[in-house]
Amino acid sequence: MFSNCVGRLGLLSRPHRHIQRKCGLHGRPNFTKNNYKAIRGNFGYLEEQHIQFFQKLLGYDRILTDLSDLEQYNVDRYCQVRGCSQIVLKPKTTEEVSQILSFCNENRLAICLQGGNTDVVGASVPVFDEIVVSTELMNEIIDLDENSGVIICQAGCVLENIDKKLEGSGLMVPLDLGAKGSCHIGGNVATNAGGLRLLRYGNLHGNVLGLEVVKANGEVIDCLSTLKKDNTGFHLKHLFIGSEGTLGFITKVSLQCPPRARSINVAFLGLQNFDKVLKTFRKAKEDLCEILSAFEVIDSTSMEFAKETVGITSPIGDYPYYLLIETSGSNPEHDADKLYKFLDLVLVKHLALNGTLATEPAKVNAIWAIREKIPEGFKHSSVLCYDFSLPLSKYFDLVEDMRNHMGSLAKKVFGFGHLGDGNLHLQIEVNEMSKEVRDHVEPNVFERVKQMNGSISAEHGMGFLKANYLSFANPPSKVEMMRNLKSMLDPKGILNPYKVFPWTYS
Amino acid sequence: MFSNCVGRLGLLSRPHRHIQRKCGLHGRPNFTKNNYKAIRGNFGYLEEQHIQFFQKLLGYDRILTDLSDLEQYNVDRYCQVRGCSQIVLKPKTTEEVSQILSFCNENRLAICLQGGNTDVVGASVPVFDEIVVSTELMNEIIDLDENSGVIICQAGCVLENIDKKLEGSGLMVPLDLGAKGSCHIGGNVATNAGGLRLLRYGNLHGNVLGLEVVKANGEVIDCLSTLKKDNTGFHLKHLFIGSEGTLGFITKVSLQCPPRARSINVAFLGLQNFDKVLKTFRKAKEDLCEILSAFEVIDSTSMEFAKETVGITSPIGDYPYYLLIETSGSNPEHDADKLYKFLDLVLVKHLALNGTLATEPAKVNAIWAIREKIPEGFKHSSVLCYDFSLPLSKYFDLVEDMRNHMGSLAKKVFGFGHLGDGNLHLQIEVNEMSKEVRDHVEPNVFERVKQMNGSISAEHGMGFLKANYLSFANPPSKVEMMRNLKSMLDPKGILNPYKVFPWTYS
Repeated sequence: MFSNCVGRLGLLSRPHRHIQRKCGLHGRPNFTKNNYKAIRGNFGYLEEQHIQFFQKLLGYDRILTDLSDLEQYNVDRYCQVRGCSQIVLKPKTTEEVSQILSFCNENRLAICLQGGNTDVVGASVPVFDEIVVSTELMNEIIDLDENSGVIICQAGCVLENIDKKLEGSGLMVPLDLGAKGSCHIGGNVATNAGGLRLLRYGNLHGNVLGLEVVKANGEVIDCLSTLKKDNTGFHLKHLFIGSEGTLGFITKVSLQCPPRARSINVAFLGLQNFDKVLKTFRKAKEDLCEILSAFEVIDSTSMEFAKETVGITSPIGDYPYYLLIETSGSNPEHDADKLYKFLDLVLVKHLALNGTLATEPAKVNAIWAIREKIPEGFKHSSVLCYDFSLPLSKYFDLVEDMRNHMGSLAKKVFGFGHLGDGNLHLQIEVNEMSKEVRDHVEPNVFERVKQMNGSISAEHGMGFLKANYLSFANPPSKVEMMRNLKSMLDPKGILNPYKVFPWTYS
Repeated sequence: MFSNCVGRLGLLSRPHRHIQRKCGLHGRPNFTKNNYKAIRGNFGYLEEQHIQFFQKLLGYDRILTDLSDLEQYNVDRYCQVRGCSQIVLKPKTTEEVSQILSFCNENRLAICLQGGNTDVVGASVPVFDEIVVSTELMNEIIDLDENSGVIICQAGCVLENIDKKLEGSGLMVPLDLGAKGSCHIGGNVATNAGGLRLLRYGNLHGNVLGLEVVKANGEVIDCLSTLKKDNTGFHLKHLFIGSEGTLGFITKVSLQCPPRARSINVAFLGLQNFDKVLKTFRKAKEDLCEILSAFEVIDSTSMEFAKETVGITSPIGDYPYYLLIETSGSNPEHDADKLYKFLDLVLVKHLALNGTLATEPAKVNAIWAIREKIPEGFKHSSVLCYDFSLPLSKYFDLVEDMRNHMGSLAKKVFGFGHLGDGNLHLQIEVNEMSKEVRDHVEPNVFERVKQMNGSISAEHGMGFLKANYLSFANPPSKVEMMRNLKSMLDPKGILNPYKVFPWTYS
């Protein structure tokens, strides 16, 4: 299979020794270039002289060219896509990134930026033979100002490590993701990661105080402010937040960090219908207000799926809808009092039919496990997964619509997600993944979401797998502006080609 | 004096009848074009045929050409600058804005975008004869989704009116400014207004969910999402937040609105030194945490100045530093308990020497009045006012530095501000405002701020008065990127010329 992927140097013709990336039920994916009709851009091919330049810059130990080493950089976490890069570079400093980009830009060599490689839309691995530039050695925490709660770190710092560093100062990162143990902060910013507690701590556009970014031509843009208020010109850093590495290479990040919560409580409720879910949400916003940190919904079919695949069951019996409501605050007594009173009220008012509450960490984690383990079931079945934003009034209509649309083609259609942010994860379980099934779902499901004024990618981004929907998801004036920005900042298109922008045009 | 300002049509030669803008101690300012060495850009002059086009589009009653009507649009709120526009246009719809801009772009007619005209850096009035396009009739609230807490409104809605609309739904605008009774939400967004409660509710980059913007060529960019999470391409709206109307004309805004606070409490403390101010801030962040909504500092000289000019005195006796600490929360009992305990602790630990607390609205307002009335004193004296961001460790060093630097040239040098956001308002009171005094202060004070890694404009923006400092405040790579963005979106430079970008180059 590797023979499909031999570059000019034939570097990949060495025998395949070891694949560190473990792919599950469906095995290692085919090469993206064979699976999809993408056309390689007009980029240069890796040559011996290029490798010599990189060796001189980084030394031998920060360059990978061995097939066994390359595989984990070529395959994404969910084994959906597979590139055939011949080289991985591991810079440590902004200056090195700058020199790599400048050189690649001059030689028209395409680059794939890679952080923790935890994305789900094929954004962080190469499509063809792009040079992988990994941030894994850019993992220095540069400064922590405890008075203002601002941390500055390199882009390759793992989210969880930043949080650990902050713990001693009574602070926390304002972002929490399932992948926190491996995702890099640079990747989080580049993809505008949302996560579990956006409801409480806001999004990265609000929490990122500064960025240092290297442009495709190697020029360093210093927006690395640590100030909360700075209105001295355009707010350039926001252009790079959520641009998925296609406009620049984020090298440093400064973050505003809130005080660490002293108490975390969780309630788990069973409800009769979605109208009551919405009423409970409004009540939670009013009564839990400043301490409401998560409002997650799970439908009964999700729970059935979780039971069948990973053995998870509801601790309160079976209901059409479940809510996981979390509070994070500074005063354990006040927080528990608020949550108890809230629960009393929703039970008395018959908004919820049943519920349980956890204030001890072990029980809090046990309840969270119900919600977090649902996606683990995807490894044991064939599931089409979607990440949508929808207006709350139509939030679950889509699940019902798709259930009707799929009919017997689907085993199960179910939904769960961050209702507090309007973010629905829609899942379609099928007997076997086939072109017929996929064609029946897409673009139909995207059209329904669009009709409902929703977003076809709430937090996952466009990456490679959704890139062809850019014009579907955005009016022509916005797409044109995006193209103009791309041309302005990366005129040769070397940064993350085939991502965000439709590769059918490449 | 008007003779300086006659355009090609001589519209301004009509007798001057009534000036609605009331200027205080220093009277109506001279024309900016005479006071400053700005050079008029290569723009067209207003002609009869242009007026006919506007009349056809808007009717006669939404165009002002009479001198007496024009004056309030030509002079800024603080009577610092004065343009000589000959025409004010008052569109009601996006379509009308689009047609105005398209026409002006074709005819190379410069435009001055005006909201509530409440800015302090000469941003919202013309410099020469730019056509004023006012948002005052674009004041429709379009939609309010009470479930998700999202409001959509036109750009000309007055901030306070939006807040009133939200009150019935238990929601509030996440922004509070002294000028809320007259500023427009479009202007707030265009200048990235910060205000009093940024500490609690975050900045506009976090709270604005969507924008509709008209480009210089009349093209409408629809980024008017109401979704909290939407990662389907670049996050374009952020480019317009804080760009001061130089990149596009904001016509609609959608805002995420938090639940309205059910209890607001305020404490007023006297402290011995700035080290204790900082320690009290850290303690407040830890113990008041999620309900801390303002942390304002006032130095003793500010209080002396307020006493002399507007008769305000400290309710707790004289101290080197005062703190105004506000909490906003959902549970009056919990909030008061947190604040009482916090006050006990800072007094027992000798962080504060004295303090008082208010939980009733009348007393809360009375304490806020101490802080809010200081700027009123500026009307009764000659004061140079600055709006800086500084790292907290150096926050008050600047006041002391400038006191030494000014020596007998200043009557008083004092500081107060939103310490919680690192935002210092530095004031220099002088016997008489003169070129000598100003030259002694600037650019010296800006250089000191830069050395301290601060910002020379925390929330006020660059406008006209600070525009020449753009390259001082930003490295060349950022300025170049700003210029490229401007060229991309407004190639003829018709939108708010002489603002943000140095007008010495115009």
